[in-house]
Amino acid sequence: MQDNEVAARLELAQAVAREAGGMAMSYFARRDELAIETKANPQDVFSIADRNVETRIREMVVDVFAADGFLGEEFGVTEGSSGFTWVVDPIDGTSPFIFGLPTWCVSISLLHEGRTVAGVIYAPPTDEMFACMKGAGATLNGRPMKLDAETTLSTGLTGLGANFRVPRETILNFVDGLMAIGGVFIRNGSGALMLAHVAAGRLVAYYEPHMNSWDCLAGMLMVREAGGWAGEFPDGDRLLDGGPVLVASPGAKDQLQELVASTTTPAQPAPATNINHS
Amino acid sequence: MQDNEVAARLELAQAVAREAGGMAMSYFARRDELAIETKANPQDVFSIADRNVETRIREMVVDVFAADGFLGEEFGVTEGSSGFTWVVDPIDGTSPFIFGLPTWCVSISLLHEGRTVAGVIYAPPTDEMFACMKGAGATLNGRPMKLDAETTLSTGLTGLGANFRVPRETILNFVDGLMAIGGVFIRNGSGALMLAHVAAGRLVAYYEPHMNSWDCLAGMLMVREAGGWAGEFPDGDRLLDGGPVLVASPGAKDQLQELVASTTTPAQPAPATNINHS
Repeated sequence: MQDNEVAARLELAQAVAREAGGMAMSYFARRDELAIETKANPQDVFSIADRNVETRIREMVVDVFAADGFLGEEFGVTEGSSGFTWVVDPIDGTSPFIFGLPTWCVSISLLHEGRTVAGVIYAPPTDEMFACMKGAGATLNGRPMKLDAETTLSTGLTGLGANFRVPRETILNFVDGLMAIGGVFIRNGSGALMLAHVAAGRLVAYYEPHMNSWDCLAGMLMVREAGGWAGEFPDGDRLLDGGPVLVASPGAKDQLQELVASTTTPAQPAPATNINHS
Repeated sequence: MQDNEVAARLELAQAVAREAGGMAMSYFARRDELAIETKANPQDVFSIADRNVETRIREMVVDVFAADGFLGEEFGVTEGSSGFTWVVDPIDGTSPFIFGLPTWCVSISLLHEGRTVAGVIYAPPTDEMFACMKGAGATLNGRPMKLDAETTLSTGLTGLGANFRVPRETILNFVDGLMAIGGVFIRNGSGALMLAHVAAGRLVAYYEPHMNSWDCLAGMLMVREAGGWAGEFPDGDRLLDGGPVLVASPGAKDQLQELVASTTTPAQPAPATNINHS
């Protein structure tokens, strides 16, 4: 793998994310009319948007890198032969999109032989392009993102995500433990976007007991490339299964690991948090 | 009080909110540079922005309605003689503003003899102007907002707010009870903005055990004017003390009241939730 092979794909990923985001934004802005026109409910309108956006992303990728593999949330895996795989969530933040909250995004992760080598998260409602490349840093709208070591869970804002597969106790224990040390939780409905917010220093950490690879790989690399820490999420094995996601600014890393270790319920597989891939 | 007296003030309030929001946005965009230039920390930069924005709002109001009273978060009360009082939070969402999250807003409530008669909430990062006038409805960027009765706490997204004066148990019990009925909580760091999101149908309800008048009066009227419900918050007595805030879409009103009644800890004054002012 050459750096320029990754750089060329990162450049395309940003163009693709912008195009896909614009397309998603047009569905988002017209979702009430579309629901009426198609006699569909808002969930159906979302599904149509999600599928059509993923299809457009696949087309744009295959046009340029026909030998690359592709894994999308909607249409699953297409094997490739180049060693590169695009792992894509066309619209992350289903509920915000459906109800009209501006917290959703396009997430594109680029893997080489199972390892994340670049990522793009684009948030159309605020026109923010977060991008990163392994070893080359992370940027927001072209400006470098670099985390400080001062902010902790007690002084910053901590993002939290959960879905219905997660036991309630896991979330309650985490919220309780976080508030006990003076922390504040934030939840905006899009895990990928909250990961980007950690990379940008807006959130000091993010925890979600279970995420899918297409929601988190780009964001995890982004946090590492901004100088933060991301726990283990084996790129190979868990591509289809997902797993726990912990990321933090340098000053909050130990606190987050301790908090999660002390609040994870026995029923839940304990997240492995000691291995840093970058 | 004549309708046109209110309408004239609502028109000014929107112009003022846009001007104030633009001013706040310029501090927001330059907050890292400002911290370096003034050798201040981000909290200090926020305080400077908050005060200067409130001062600008006061100037613009007094220029046109010199006999109106004014209550601002930063500089307190100025008595008036017209019967009208402007109740203003120059920047709601202190933590998001400080850390760079785009979830903060300007909130302007207009009271007449202690009752809220109009309100404006302006969110600069997404350029969204939420406005309402008692008896005349609510709008988002000029388009009417009208809540449906279908969405419930179990199918929609519920906003949650809290500050450090609130017992942890109150928050934990609410989160637990909400998740138990299949609900999803959202917290973006700005209570005023989340109230506006309820009016817009993006959140189905919002609960915060204690809010100040300048954070919530505009948003509460907005939810009522959009066809939703807002609990008791005596405009007169609690102008300086604040109180609990509950608002909901029609389909979530009973559920929210029951949930809060069942999860409020005895140490906490039980919110009165049975009186609807509108």
